[in-house]
This record gives sequence, structure tokens and C-alpha cells, in this order.
Amino acid sequence: MTPRQAKASEEALLRIFTVPEAPDSTLSVIEQNISQNLMGFLQESVVAVEKPLTEIERDFQHHQIPASPQFVSDYADDMMKTLVAHSVHTSSPSFIGHMTSALPYFVLPLSKMMVGLNQNLVKIETSKAFTPLERQVLGMMHHLIYAEDDSFYQNWMHSANVSLGAFCSGGTVANITALWTARNQLLKADGQYRGVAAQGLMKGLRHYGYDDLAILVSKRGHYSLGKTADLLGIGRENIIQVPTSDDNKVDVAQMQRIAVQLAADNIKVMAIVGVAGTTETGNVDPLNELADLAATLDCHFHVDAAWGGTTLLSKKYRHLLAGIERADSVTIDAHKQMYVPMGAGMVIFKDPTFANAIKHHAEYILRKGSKDLGSQTLEGSRPGMAMLVHACLQVIGRDGYEILINNSIDKAHYFAELIKQQTDFELVSKPELCLLTYRYVPQVVQAAMAKARATKDLQKLTEFNGLLDGLTKFVQKRQREQGTSFVSRTRISPESRQLMDIKAIVFRVVLANPLTTHEILQQVLAEQACIAAQETQFLPKLMALAAHY
Amino acid sequence: MTPRQAKASEEALLRIFTVPEAPDSTLSVIEQNISQNLMGFLQESVVAVEKPLTEIERDFQHHQIPASPQFVSDYADDMMKTLVAHSVHTSSPSFIGHMTSALPYFVLPLSKMMVGLNQNLVKIETSKAFTPLERQVLGMMHHLIYAEDDSFYQNWMHSANVSLGAFCSGGTVANITALWTARNQLLKADGQYRGVAAQGLMKGLRHYGYDDLAILVSKRGHYSLGKTADLLGIGRENIIQVPTSDDNKVDVAQMQRIAVQLAADNIKVMAIVGVAGTTETGNVDPLNELADLAATLDCHFHVDAAWGGTTLLSKKYRHLLAGIERADSVTIDAHKQMYVPMGAGMVIFKDPTFANAIKHHAEYILRKGSKDLGSQTLEGSRPGMAMLVHACLQVIGRDGYEILINNSIDKAHYFAELIKQQTDFELVSKPELCLLTYRYVPQVVQAAMAKARATKDLQKLTEFNGLLDGLTKFVQKRQREQGTSFVSRTRISPESRQLMDIKAIVFRVVLANPLTTHEILQQVLAEQACIAAQETQFLPKLMALAAHY
Repeated sequence: MTPRQAKASEEALLRIFTVPEAPDSTLSVIEQNISQNLMGFLQESVVAVEKPLTEIERDFQHHQIPASPQFVSDYADDMMKTLVAHSVHTSSPSFIGHMTSALPYFVLPLSKMMVGLNQNLVKIETSKAFTPLERQVLGMMHHLIYAEDDSFYQNWMHSANVSLGAFCSGGTVANITALWTARNQLLKADGQYRGVAAQGLMKGLRHYGYDDLAILVSKRGHYSLGKTADLLGIGRENIIQVPTSDDNKVDVAQMQRIAVQLAADNIKVMAIVGVAGTTETGNVDPLNELADLAATLDCHFHVDAAWGGTTLLSKKYRHLLAGIERADSVTIDAHKQMYVPMGAGMVIFKDPTFANAIKHHAEYILRKGSKDLGSQTLEGSRPGMAMLVHACLQVIGRDGYEILINNSIDKAHYFAELIKQQTDFELVSKPELCLLTYRYVPQVVQAAMAKARATKDLQKLTEFNGLLDGLTKFVQKRQREQGTSFVSRTRISPESRQLMDIKAIVFRVVLANPLTTHEILQQVLAEQACIAAQETQFLPKLMALAAHY
Repeated sequence: MTPRQAKASEEALLRIFTVPEAPDSTLSVIEQNISQNLMGFLQESVVAVEKPLTEIERDFQHHQIPASPQFVSDYADDMMKTLVAHSVHTSSPSFIGHMTSALPYFVLPLSKMMVGLNQNLVKIETSKAFTPLERQVLGMMHHLIYAEDDSFYQNWMHSANVSLGAFCSGGTVANITALWTARNQLLKADGQYRGVAAQGLMKGLRHYGYDDLAILVSKRGHYSLGKTADLLGIGRENIIQVPTSDDNKVDVAQMQRIAVQLAADNIKVMAIVGVAGTTETGNVDPLNELADLAATLDCHFHVDAAWGGTTLLSKKYRHLLAGIERADSVTIDAHKQMYVPMGAGMVIFKDPTFANAIKHHAEYILRKGSKDLGSQTLEGSRPGMAMLVHACLQVIGRDGYEILINNSIDKAHYFAELIKQQTDFELVSKPELCLLTYRYVPQVVQAAMAKARATKDLQKLTEFNGLLDGLTKFVQKRQREQGTSFVSRTRISPESRQLMDIKAIVFRVVLANPLTTHEILQQVLAEQACIAAQETQFLPKLMALAAHY
């Protein structure tokens, strides 16, 4: 390359930083479509019928970074075909299988503003007003849970060296942050011992004379808790999964018995985790009873309300989370039922000094006495997502959330009734919030299974459940592949715990999308019934088994 | 509220999900400004002169979530005044104090597309084509570091249950993920012992007969490593900070001596961390020597190239990171020198099966054999940021990055020369990549300090450095407040380690913004000289001290 050519390349390159996308460029046109009709754009751009993953992968095979630059418009064209066409229409009102919902339009331009500003929330020097904004969001969420008086927030919300919580990318990091803090508070410095943060877990356990630590949680607890125990050096086996009663709420009496046994084995219960909206069934643990037990055991009480915590915004339903105000820490995800885009989790601490147990400093940032948010977060550099939560809180407001949340829960009750009315469906877990599970069970099979239950014929029940698993899995996959609607599936106990503890596959729906109508729910069931009726492997066996029973 | 009013409220609310922002709405106008002239928008919207934080906080005082919804246009107006006006113009070419740079225009509409699609990368069911795209990005970065042959990537890039790396929100999570994996590989299952992930750290140490674990790293290592040691239960004191030589590279001989001592104390070195671009001085550790030492010690070798790793994209300068291909894991942040917006970090693993040590499953996602990315990441739900890295790799290409990176480093060399030419400035650390440190030291003070060094008058040297600290801090703060330009500050050793190990405040600049010109650099120095010359507390004392020496 001659020097002149090199200069020309360089100038062409710098244009991506200085010359905006032309209004009629491919990318600008795509953007206008998104801005003016997001649903239409997604409906047109995302192909309905599922393409096998192995075929999609063919478009992402090159492992070498291309040498030559590509024109933005060519890249955009490519991505429409290879990426957007084969992404998931998460905001479709008939995609009721996950916790991702429709987004309000105004978050789109605000997201662009956030990206354009490109602030880094780790420190004030790279975020300035974003820091007080994030502290305000944490303060508002703290007030939503704990409702302390005005002076509390005046004293602490913007105070250096304390924090009412930590903003993070999602519920997993929030749970890790809460339990990391709890571990460090438990094994804190004491006399000559400089604390677990400084000296590590083994010396901490030795100093305090424990053989091990344990965390007690319902067996419906989120898988991130196992990850947390691994990460913190506590070990996955020390997340003690306590059985639930038939309503999928943790059995507190049994938790207490386990705690007594652990104490006898010199294993300290570091924390009790209450689940406020289990991922699989949407049920809420008896939080007040758990708070009582935590007080008795003198241990940390964390509530994982990543999904259900938003219910606190409903005056009508917040009583379902009674006792959450006694938690030492609470996880809430704004990207679930608060209608904020992916990447907005929070942990809230009752005591503003609590997070001091994980505080850290450096020479060039997070200096002592600074208000830098990064001194008490697990993540370092991170974007200003709190802005989008702030926007939703203001633009939707409590009155708006009241409507959205109540509608979601009421819709789940409607859907549960609808399922009960069908002859060939069985409601497996009733909705407490807006989540429920069910499966397709032909009426004659239901009758046969009822008989097996009455006679405690566990072998036959196991057989029925096994065949139903095959059928449910088939229906769920086929429905997803057809692309009109989507429910997810999980494995939970469909039988009474008194009778037998068996796991079976069920459909799982989350009804948080405000655009999901009753008609759509009727169609979802109709489609499933239609797919199930044509299944040729498990259905005939089920029918035969029931007929001869 | 009557039922009719309630219905009207609900319909009004649903409009935020169904009716796009009008093209002439406040928010749309703001958005158009950003799209058409980002620099101009930021220049006009962000106020130049700094407002004290306590005043900014007044706009973020309410701790109650407002009851009534607010109009989007009113909210947008508010945010322009309270938030945008007092945010940081991170992409300004004269803001050379941090690692955040200008963004290419095309990432703005792509970010909006990403938000509109709202995929969740934890699992294929909510991300589909985004999963192979992210795996491709990790594959390309793996190839950039390790350059394995074609068959390697054909076999592993899209293979279930292995991963060439993990995408995450930033370098901190990447470093944590790398060292978490290293800990779990070291204390893996063995006979009756089920491994640290299952049984916890204490049992792991006991089984393998270690009294403790340690991580060796230069004292210039990033503060996230201390956080990692805390989190993993290893303890901050077991991050052994090894001194550096005068070029800010770790002293490998001394690291080896420390390792011998640790072995004698029955403390197992779990990992050596090499720094490829220290945060404070931008220097690269001797990676080949560290790789040799790691081989001798039979321990994990991690390279924290969060900032400097992008240099691998330059044929001219990638030799500066020679030896990185011997690392077991490497951290790279795309939101630093790859010109991707905040929130894009990666850890890359040499061995595709390495991350199996942190693998986890659940009933409803991350099932065994699935290609769900979430089974080997610290985070759970997270956004499709990999798309923006993918876009930059294609649109900028290797040829483009070659120009951008070489220009940055060449610009740093230019600035270093410029500083040396000034009579009243002192270059403290020379640029190896595009980062350097310096301070304002009047010529007579330089002469006096040279004399103190020659005569080993450490007391006087300490006195000079102390006064210079006050002056440097004053200049840095005042320059920031004036709002025309910004450099950061840190504390490093300005004297030869042979003479004395003392810390002093220095200016720190990162020259990654392609729009920063030589003229701007001249202006930055001129402004600093002007501020310094008018300082009334430390400067007179310095001059007096020098005059009487």
C-alpha cells in the first residue's frame, strides 16, 4: 500500500466515527421500521417456522476475523437474513413460555440515548448524574420493599460508603452479591482474625469453629443458588434443598428440623433463602415463617424475588409477599415484570451498611469516601441500565404497574379456569402470581390415573406419568417448531407428595405480556390439543393402558 | 374510579406497548439528533462546566415511586436537563482520561435492534441464532489469541457442552470466571472426594493437603483480582502482589522466589496472572517468562488483557503480547479498545473443555447436552451484546483495527515526546501501548529533585513528591471542572525502585479515541500548565523548597 492509499483507507475508516448513517441507508430503514412498528417488524422479520440449529450454525462458521472491512448496509442485510430471521420473537403475545415480555415503545429511543452517552457506572468520573439516578432507583425499590421513613432515605440514599443495594446485569449476580455479603458478614473480622474477605474461607471457618456453612432453600429455588454456593467456596452440596408441600411452598417445619440437625453436626446455617415467585411454578414461600426461623437461627434472610418482586407494585396483590420486609436482602429483576429490556437486576439491602462487607478500593477509582458505585458491586465497568428502570418507574408509575400486574395475575386465573374446563387438560400447579403449569391428559387417562391414585397403585402411576412425559415433550417441541405460539416445559412433581415424589414434564406459562388476550390463550390450548391428538407414539400407548386398567 | 374510567386508564396504558413514539415527539426529536449528529448532540446537551454532585443529587431525591404515570415527552425533557446535561462526554476527543472512547455510528441503530429483539442469551429457547453468533465471536477471539487450525474450530466452536470462552458484562466478571474455573480444576473430584464445586473449599484443601491457595500477580494487577479472591473464598491476602521493575512489569525472578516460599509453607499457587496492559501504566508483563514459571509450578496461567488484548488485532504491535498464546485463559473487554458500547467482556479458554469445571444444569433450561450458553457462565439472563462485537469485527475488520490500534499507540508515542519537550512536565511512565502517565514539575523543581536523587536524599525526595501530589491533584480536579478536557489520575511509584518505593499522584491518559488529534494533546498540556502556574498552595512551597536546595 502506498502512503497515499494508506491515508485514504484511514480517512474512510474514520468516517464510521464521524459520518452518521444516511437516512435512506439499509440500517436506517430497518431502524425506522423498528421505531414505527416494532411488532410488525418482528412479525415480518422473524421467520415463523423453526430452522434447525445446525442449519443456523452454518451462517456462523467462520472462525477468522475478516481482513477487509464490510459495508454497514451489507452487514445489515446479512444480519436480517441470518440473525434476525432466526431469533426468537420474545415479545409476541402468543409466546407465553418465558419471562421476557413485550417492551414499551419509549424504551427503544431511551436505550439508544443510553448507548450514545456510553457511561460507565463503576465510578462517578465516567457516569456523573447517572450515579445519583441509579442510587435513586435503588432507593425507590428499597422504599417499595421496606417503606422506611423520609429521614432514612434523606440520610442514606446518596450517602458515600453505604448503599441501599446494588444494580447488576441480572438476578443471578444479585443473588451472588447478597450471599457473598452474608458470608462476609458472618465470618467478619474479630480480634486478631482479619475476616473471610482478607484471609479466606478456611481460616474463617476455623476461627469461628464451624465445620462447614449451609444455605437453606426450597427445592424450587433457582439454579443460580447452586452456582453461588460453588463460587463462594461453600459447595453445592451445602445448598440444602428443603422439600415443599403440595402447593410448592417450602415446608418450614422440615427446614427447622434440618437446621437442628445441621447445628448438631456443627454446620452453621449462613442464610435462609425464601423464594418469592419460583421459576417453575410461581409460588411464594411463607416469608413470615422463614423470617421467624432466620431470627431463631440468627442467620441471614434473603428473598429471591427476581421474578415475583414486582408484585409489590400492586396494592391488590402485594399481600402475597407479606414478610418480605423482614428480609435482610432482596433480589428483583427489572427485565422481568417491570418491562425493562434485558440486563437490569438489583439486590436491595435492608441495612445500608450491610454491603460494607464486600467493599473494595483502588488507587485510581473507588477511593475511600467516594460515592463511586463500583466499590460495592460484583461487576466492575457496566452500562447505565438503571436509566431504563428509572424511566419505566416514572412513565408507567405505580398506577400503571397496578393495572399491568393485576391484569397478569387475573389472566393467569382465567387461564387456569379455562384449563380446568377442558376435558383433556390437567392443571398441575395453580397460579398464585401469573405463572402456572399444566399438561395434556386425555379424559380416559385422567379417570384411570384417579383410580390408580385411589388404590395407591404407584407402579401404574409411574407408568402413566412416564408416557405423559413423552407426549408433553412432543407437543411442546412441535408447537415451538410450528412457530405460532410457544409455551416452555419443566419437570415438577405432579402427584401429591403424600402419595409419591415423582417428577414429570409439564407445560409452563408466564402471563406477563399485556398484549396476550383471552383469545390467544384459547388458541394455545386448541393448538396443543390438535398436536397431541395426532401424536403416534405415546398417545396410543396411554389410551391402551387406560382402556385396560 | 368507575369501571369505565378504569377501562380508559388501562387502554391509555396499553398504548405505550402498541403505539410508537410520534416522529415529532420530544423523544423522537432527541433520537434524531443523536442519530444525525451524536457529537454535536453531546456537545450541546452535556454542560461543560461541572456542577457539584450534591447539587445534581437534588434532582434525584424522591424515594417514592410516583403514583401517576408521566408523559414520555415530559420525562424526556426532564432527563435532558437533569441527567444528560450532567453526564460525562466520554466520547469527546479531549477526554483522554479513561478507557471509554468514541463509538462508531452504526452501533447506535444496531443497539436499538438488539434491545427491540430483547433476546436472553442464557438459553437457545430465548436467543436462537444469537447463540451461534456469540459462539462465533468467542471462536474468532480464540483464533486471534491461539490460532488453532481449522479442524479445531470445526470441532469445537458450536459443540454442545464445551465452550471456547464466556461472554459477560465486563472484564471483572471475565477474571472471576477464569479464576473460578481454575480453582475448580485444581480442586477437582478425585476418588471419594466430589470436588470443590460440590463440597466446598475447606474439604477441597483438606483433600489435597494444602493449607491455603495463592494467586500471584504484579502489584499493578487490576483491583478485580482482589474482589475475585474474596468472592472465591481464597482471601484477598492470598493475592500476592509481586513488585515490578522500573518499567512496571512484574519481576518474574521475585515471583519465583515467592512461589518457592509459598510451597515451603504448604500454600499451593493456584494461578499466575499476567497483566497485558496494566490499568494504571499500560505495560505488559513478560508473558513468556510467566508461562515458563506457570509450567514449572504446574499452575493455571491467566492473562488479564481486558484493556490491552485488542492489540492482538495489530500485526505491527501484537508482538508486544508475545506469550499470550500460552495462557490457559485470557480476559478481553470489547467495550474498551474494540469500540463497542459498555457491557461487553469476554474470557477465552485455550482448552474447550476447561469450563466444564463450572458447568451447571437445571430442569427447565441448560439441560445436559444442550448448547445453552448459560450452563458455563457466571451470569444467568443477559442481553445479546455479542451482536455488537460481531458487527464491529465485520464492519471494521482486521485491516480497520490495524489502523485504529497503530494510530493509538503512535499517538501515545507522540504525546510522550511532546511531554519530554516541555520544560515543566515530567513523563513518569513511557507508553508501551496507548497509555502513559506524567505530571507537572517546574524545571527548577526537576533540577532540585535530580540533585536529591543523586545524593540519595530520600527525605527531600519524599517532601518534593508530597508537594507535587497536592499540585497534581489540584490541576486534575480543576481541569475536570472546567470541562474542556479531562485526564485521570492515579498513584504510582515515580522514583526508581532501587532508590525508594514511594507512591505519588500522576496524570494518566489513554489515547484510544481515533478523533483525538495532536492539536488537542497540545491544548491539554497548555491548559494544565496554565492551571498549575496559578496554583497558590503547593506551587509556591515547591518553588521555595527547590530554591533553597
